[in-house]
Amino acid sequence: MNKNKQKVNAAIVIIGNEILSGRTQDVNVVAISKWLNELGVKLEEVRVIPDIEVSIIKTVRELKKFFKYVFTTGGIGPTHDDITAKSIAKAFHLSYGYHKEAYAILEKYYGKKNFTPGRKKMAMMPIKASLILNPSSGAPGFIVDNVYCLPGVPSILESMLGGLKNKIKGGKKILTETISAQTIESEIAKALEKIQHKFNKVEIGSYPFFRLGKIGVSIVIRSDDKKKIDDCYKKIVSFLKMRKINMVGKK
Amino acid sequence: MNKNKQKVNAAIVIIGNEILSGRTQDVNVVAISKWLNELGVKLEEVRVIPDIEVSIIKTVRELKKFFKYVFTTGGIGPTHDDITAKSIAKAFHLSYGYHKEAYAILEKYYGKKNFTPGRKKMAMMPIKASLILNPSSGAPGFIVDNVYCLPGVPSILESMLGGLKNKIKGGKKILTETISAQTIESEIAKALEKIQHKFNKVEIGSYPFFRLGKIGVSIVIRSDDKKKIDDCYKKIVSFLKMRKINMVGKK
Repeated sequence: MNKNKQKVNAAIVIIGNEILSGRTQDVNVVAISKWLNELGVKLEEVRVIPDIEVSIIKTVRELKKFFKYVFTTGGIGPTHDDITAKSIAKAFHLSYGYHKEAYAILEKYYGKKNFTPGRKKMAMMPIKASLILNPSSGAPGFIVDNVYCLPGVPSILESMLGGLKNKIKGGKKILTETISAQTIESEIAKALEKIQHKFNKVEIGSYPFFRLGKIGVSIVIRSDDKKKIDDCYKKIVSFLKMRKINMVGKK
Repeated sequence: MNKNKQKVNAAIVIIGNEILSGRTQDVNVVAISKWLNELGVKLEEVRVIPDIEVSIIKTVRELKKFFKYVFTTGGIGPTHDDITAKSIAKAFHLSYGYHKEAYAILEKYYGKKNFTPGRKKMAMMPIKASLILNPSSGAPGFIVDNVYCLPGVPSILESMLGGLKNKIKGGKKILTETISAQTIESEIAKALEKIQHKFNKVEIGSYPFFRLGKIGVSIVIRSDDKKKIDDCYKKIVSFLKMRKINMVGKK
């Protein structure tokens, strides 16, 4: 088994010409990532790919080997450009057709009379998939092995995450501390590097910001180990104090 | 030579733990994509990867083979987590060190006295790279072969795109038309599919929206062929009229 699969990590595949064309600003990565942080799952890769069957198959086959969880967003609606379900069936060599439970849910949601062919298409997926229930608009997502297929519309996607919680076995929650300092990166680069070497289980990131006409650097510390975060935090704060650099922090 | 290289396409590699952690909302994809549309270059893939050397090397080596242009964003600042330049040098087996021209630019920008070791680091890159000039904050980006390395801070990145224009040989400009219709996707799915089959050189996308309490569908048509876009546009509009579906469009 691939070594990576033992890590509690995840990848997102955004299936969406509208993101690649620059027409639509993706916001699903932030939503899924924050939700995964809470569950102790680390998002380690995102790919945005076009609505093309071979791209979906190739990408999903590759990522499902390397990540414990793979989430796809987009392409599960009723129109011709919604090809995620069929592509996932092909990626896993599964039969594709009406999913009994999904069909029943959608028929109930729309009523027998209004259950048009377009709407019926949303019940087509790998027939043995598990469903992800959709409290906002009926049409369910689905799960095949470690691949979780969600819609692209952010409000609907977010409404579906809650019901997924119990299906994800996370690790320790990933904790973050941020220190905002009134300085520039090159002033603190050397010291941060030393501290990073000392705390090799903590991830220290440094991000310049420009806010309300002021410049500064956000120093972000991430780890699943509370003690290590606290120690690292103290170390950075004491360095900043020593250098008389102002902080605009939470603590 | 890879067949794909003949296509005028591009990929973006976002090097950024801060995007993967959900802390920062990426906006560079939209900016670069819109700029590429104007130049007639089609963005076909985006990857967001962590600030890890092996990830950067592996991703860049893979994408540079399949895409005519590869843009990286992030990781070219002065701190320990800025490892893009070194990783790109390794990906191409090039020597990494002070880039003469970049060193001169930065020394002039900061002044000899204030040209600290942290700032000098920003002059370190593949020593034979071509530079991408930075009108906002001095530190240049760089080009190796078909890989263009840009900073992660959106305002700085955008200020650098202008100067890059002449280095990109685009194809025909990619044109877009959007029709916003007061309907739902399942009502128009069948007809759109038929139209898509007829216009196979045009990309038709369908995106549900919820605006000011109203629901609707944006039908987006993309192609580099003005005539085909116009014909396809007319076909869709006449179908919507026939079905008495209201449009809230530009035309």
